[in-house]
Formats: sequence, structure tokens, C-alpha cells
Amino acid sequence: MVRTEISEEEHRERIGRVREELERRNLDALYLTSGTSFLYLTGFSYIQTERPAAIIVPVEGEVTFLGPVIEKDHIPLKTRIIKEILTYPDYPGEKHPMDFFAQFLREMKLDKKRMGIDNLAGASARWGYKGPKITQKLPDASFVEAKDLVEDMRLIKSEAEIELLKESAKWCAVATELLQRELKPGVWDPVASLKASLQASQAMKESLGGKYEPQRWTLAPAHAGLRGQVGAMSAIPHAMSIGRVIRKGDVLGTGAGADVGGYSSELERTMVVGKPTEGQRRRFEVMLKAQVEALMTFGPGIKCSEVDRRAAKVFRDKGYGDSLRHHTGHGMGLEGHEPPWLDVGDNTVMQPGMVFSCEPGIYFPLDAGYRHSDTVVVTEDGAEIVTSYPRDLESLTL
Amino acid sequence: MVRTEISEEEHRERIGRVREELERRNLDALYLTSGTSFLYLTGFSYIQTERPAAIIVPVEGEVTFLGPVIEKDHIPLKTRIIKEILTYPDYPGEKHPMDFFAQFLREMKLDKKRMGIDNLAGASARWGYKGPKITQKLPDASFVEAKDLVEDMRLIKSEAEIELLKESAKWCAVATELLQRELKPGVWDPVASLKASLQASQAMKESLGGKYEPQRWTLAPAHAGLRGQVGAMSAIPHAMSIGRVIRKGDVLGTGAGADVGGYSSELERTMVVGKPTEGQRRRFEVMLKAQVEALMTFGPGIKCSEVDRRAAKVFRDKGYGDSLRHHTGHGMGLEGHEPPWLDVGDNTVMQPGMVFSCEPGIYFPLDAGYRHSDTVVVTEDGAEIVTSYPRDLESLTL
Repeated sequence: MVRTEISEEEHRERIGRVREELERRNLDALYLTSGTSFLYLTGFSYIQTERPAAIIVPVEGEVTFLGPVIEKDHIPLKTRIIKEILTYPDYPGEKHPMDFFAQFLREMKLDKKRMGIDNLAGASARWGYKGPKITQKLPDASFVEAKDLVEDMRLIKSEAEIELLKESAKWCAVATELLQRELKPGVWDPVASLKASLQASQAMKESLGGKYEPQRWTLAPAHAGLRGQVGAMSAIPHAMSIGRVIRKGDVLGTGAGADVGGYSSELERTMVVGKPTEGQRRRFEVMLKAQVEALMTFGPGIKCSEVDRRAAKVFRDKGYGDSLRHHTGHGMGLEGHEPPWLDVGDNTVMQPGMVFSCEPGIYFPLDAGYRHSDTVVVTEDGAEIVTSYPRDLESLTL
Repeated sequence: MVRTEISEEEHRERIGRVREELERRNLDALYLTSGTSFLYLTGFSYIQTERPAAIIVPVEGEVTFLGPVIEKDHIPLKTRIIKEILTYPDYPGEKHPMDFFAQFLREMKLDKKRMGIDNLAGASARWGYKGPKITQKLPDASFVEAKDLVEDMRLIKSEAEIELLKESAKWCAVATELLQRELKPGVWDPVASLKASLQASQAMKESLGGKYEPQRWTLAPAHAGLRGQVGAMSAIPHAMSIGRVIRKGDVLGTGAGADVGGYSSELERTMVVGKPTEGQRRRFEVMLKAQVEALMTFGPGIKCSEVDRRAAKVFRDKGYGDSLRHHTGHGMGLEGHEPPWLDVGDNTVMQPGMVFSCEPGIYFPLDAGYRHSDTVVVTEDGAEIVTSYPRDLESLTL
């Protein structure tokens, strides 16, 4: 059977590793506000709002949720890792959530202890949240910055995580193929994107079966779209929308993702509407050469910076140094972008289990942009490209 | 013609108000890291990542963007308010973005000045970003917390903002009606949601015309869905997904939004699949009574807390005090949730131009939840409900 989520056993093992690391750092507990850390350690995923929430992992004692009562009934449906759920009525409330948190931590006898914390405010300050810091509310506790603790654990993916990313990659390819069929002159890109995402999500659900559900908040469990990267807007790597429809001669930038157990791979392609011009062909081929060069560089023991340097060298050697707008890629897993970075400034040495996007690109303002993105897993003896979709211009000409 | 965006003139007027407030506070510039503030003040919206970005509004001098080169060509296509664009190659880079920012601020002669800042880190710490604080990099500058400055400006909506929210409300209703047609036993909720969102986005684009485009990153410019609020999962106000399909007897929770100029209204309905049971009918009617009571409370001079108190009293009087999981509503505009809060702890006095969701709800674990949400604008002499969709059980029985 296809794996679609992280097992309870693996979540327990992760909590165990947190506790070991806490002991090594001489800390009594870890205070986490990152929703991604909640999901990584417990399998509980939620919609982060202005309402403060935290998960406390004590070295001794139960994993405890502090947060709004709106999540009270949600948690037991999603995880057995969180054993205690301590809630306040709502934000801002007659008594501020941070006063509740201080009270809860006193009840847990942590108010005079040494805690690692991922955010010294003690709350994820979203959407107009205001409030005192937890550090002010518990003057006898000592708080130590420990944002890196869970983030570092996430750098190297387990076998199960890689399975989920591979399954995700499969649906990225299905979604991209469905999208490619919808892309033609006269179509507005959100319409093509929604059609492809509908079909891909339906197909994924039919294949993965009744129990499958996405773990993050998303309209489309599997999705592919253009995000406005149409014609001149394809020259904007992080375009978000375009008013006009697709026209003959446009360069298009596609992107796809799929939530399998909260993890998503990434697959992007540059496509051309109608017969490519000589200029389009030349720039496409240089981009492809840079991506192939980068893809061949991955492997255990290689520095992340090296991949970026090699891709950039291909562009510079061809005279396209001025057309660079970003580095070669980023780590991925539970978040769209994660460390390490395929960037000249990141000398992290690749290890088996690290997962990256590989997406060198070049951009020509008011004209077009060229970028493919694939998802790459570093293995014991090299690397595996887990996204499988044609890369050549002929296959990507509409 | 229907308004679909905020004019350049209104953005200039907002910048003018920021400068007046800076002078009042004896500050030389405002340092903003919030993407919502970028959009509010300049019309430039972007995808926030691990790459630090800031907008500097000096009392004297040009509005300036500090950030990654990936946004360089994007900004001039979206706004004429930002006059200077100062960029670094990428994150983390051989020279850290915060070192670039310190250099840029020195060049702007702000390194010995007094600046308001919305985030003392000087960067929006997303997705594994790490770095020094800007305050450490510019020891001779003085930084003053000023997160409230733009947030407070956003509390009262202008005529144009209210027009956009009303237009959004119209498409929320269209999307909800299209969704309602798709909801039937055997359907998986993302499939119904994607079908409705596709049709609604198409209809909105056809109506608003060629220039229309969403201002935020979204798969569906107009969307309606269930977000997993099906049967027992409707008892989870912030459910995100459910594996099983819709069945006869289910209570469903719908939600809709539509991006018009970056603004979105909110429309939610409780629906029942098949003839409601006596229990479903009773709970639905109590929820409706609480919403009507709350809706009748809105008006200038009324405290936000009063609306929440009155809605909760309806539930408590009927014996449903234990079924509350959240307060009555929240402000809205550019963000899904904004202050002020319809919460017993928020004594903000309502003023004309404030916009709220009104969504008292009750929840019965492992059974069902009941909540309608409408968008309400406070006017000179009362309040206007801008979302128009049937609220009665007969209309919402499938």
C-alpha cells in the first residue's frame, strides 16, 4: 500500500530525539510556536491565526498543547502524541492568552526552569496579534533561543519522508500533464490551473483511496498552475497573476505541487505557445544546459554552494550573467522552501536524505523567463531526480 | 465601471498619512517588513519567502524597497509609489542580506536616525531564515516599535476599500451558490470546492473584464469550499480536510472568498444533507438566532465586546454555553483576520468604515457544528450586511 502519512511511531521517535537534544543542551523543555514544528513532531496541523498557540515538549512529562479552545476537539482526532490540551477561550479575551500560558507553565512546574524556545515572543505574531512576551510573564524562567533544534532535525529526511515526497512528485507530474493540455491561446491562466488541479486532485484521491486527505490547508490537494507567469510576466520569477489571456508566442512558466502527508515536491516547466523563435530556443537551451549541469553536481559530500556556482557559470559563460534573478534552489519538505540553500553563500555539505529543488533560471524583463524546477533527493552514492516530466523544448511546445 | 483596485492617488494619500504620523512621533522614517503593509501602502504584493525584504518610508526622501533582486523587475510593473529599489543577489548570499540593508540605510543617511519599525528583527523570519537583527547592524540608529502605525490606519476602511469588499461579497455569494449545487452524497469535498471555484472564477473574470487580476497569490480568484467541514468534522471550526465523501445526514460548513484588489469578504453557511433531524433543526435555529441578535447589535458607538456578549448570551440562555469554541467575529480587509475583534476582551468602539465577520457558532464534538458568517460594514447610522445569501434552514437543506 502506498504510504500517505508519517506513522505515530516515527513521530514518537522524533519526540525522543528532541528530548535527547534538550538534555544535551541542559534544557528542561522545548517551547515551540511554529505550526510546521507541531506537524513535524506530532502530526497535528492547524490554521495559524492571531490566536497564540504553543507546544511544550518537556524532558520529563507529557507533550502539551497551549492554545485556543477552537483547537481543543481537533487535536485528539489528529494525534495521540499530544497528551495534555490546555486552552484559553479566545484572543484577546478578558484575560490575555499570554497570562494563561504563564499560568499553564506554572501548573506544569516549568516557571522556574530552563526552556528552549523557537520565538522569544512566545507566540506566532500573525494577523494583528498584540501581546506581551512570555519571557516577561515568567521572569523566573530562563529562555534560550532554540529555533534551530527542530529545523536542524528536518534537514535530513527519513525513508518515510522520502517516500511521501516521491509519491507527491508523481502527482506533480500528473497535474503538470493535465495543465499542459489546458494551455492554449485565449485561456486565462487561473481557469487552466483550476481545471488541471480539479482533475489531478480527483485522480490522486481515486488512486490513494478513501483514507487519503491533505495535511495542510489547501484548496487543491494536487495542483498545477501558472501563477501569472505568462508572456512578459514569465520574466517575473515570483509573479502572482496576470489579467490577460494566453497568446500565441507566449513563454509560460508552470508549477505543480501535491500534499502527501503534509510534504510536497516541486515541478516547474518552461513552455512555449506555438513555434519557438530563434531567441526563445537559444535561451531555453542555455537554461536547460544549466539545469543539467546543476543536476549532475548533486551528491553526498558536495557543497550546496558548488551547485549554485556551476549553474551560474553556465549562464555567465553564455553571456547571460545579467539575466540571473535568484540562486539555484532550496531545500524542501514540510515547507515550500527550507534550508539548506543552493546558494553561493551556503557551504552546507550535502548528505544522503537531503532534498532540494534544482531550478536555475534566466529572465529577460518585459519579454520572458526560462526556468525548470525538479525535486532531487541526495542518496548514498549520488542523487535521484524524483520528478519525472519531459524537459526538452519539443515536448514543451504547445 | 466596477472598481477592482485601489487608485495610485489613494496609495499616495496613505503614504502622506504615514509621514504625518512619523512627524507626530518624532521619527525620521518607517521600516516595514510586513507584506500586507507593502500592499496597503504601495499596491505592491509579493510572495514572502526566507528572503528578507523591507520598505522604507522616510519623512523626507523616496519610498524605497530593500530586498532580493528576484523582485526587482516586478515592482515597477505594480506600483509607481516605490521610487528606489535596492537589492541583494539572494539569501543567504556571500554577504548577508542584513549587511546589505545596513549599507543601504547608510547610503540613505538613515544610519544615525530614529526609525519606527514593525518588527525589531528587521526581516520577516519565514521558512528557516536566520540572521542578525538590523538593530545590531546599525548601532547608531535608534529603532522604535511601530507595528501599530499602519495596522491602525487599516482599521477604518475608505470608500474605495468598502467598494472592493462589496464587490468581493457579490462573488462570495456566486461561489457559494455554485458550491451548493455540487454538494451531494458521494462527493469528496475538494472536488466540489474546485468545481465551484473554477466556475466562480470564470464568471468573475468575465464580469470584471480583461484588466482584472487577483492581487494576492491564490489558485482561485473566487473560491468556495468546505475545508473538511463535513459531518463530524464540521464540529471542528478550523478543520482542514476529511478523507471520506459527503453522506446523507451530514452537517456541512461552507466558506467563500474572492480577491478584489487584494481585499476579500467572507461568507459561510451551515448546510444539511437531506431532511434535518429534530436535533439538527434545533441547533441550527439557535445558531441563527444568535447570529441575528449579533447582526442587530452592530453600529457606530457600540463596543465590539457587546456584540460578542449578546451572541454568547443567546447560546447560554438556550443551554449551549459548553458548545462555544470561539468569539463572534473579527475585522477583515487585506487579511483574513484583522483587529478589532468581536470578543469580550476587545472594547474598541465601532466607527463607520469598520468591517467585521459576524459568525457566532456552536459545536458538538463527534457530531456537528453550526455557524454562518457574514461580512458587516459599520455605517454612519447603523450597519450594512454586504454578503447576501439565504440563512434559513430550508434554503440550506440539500
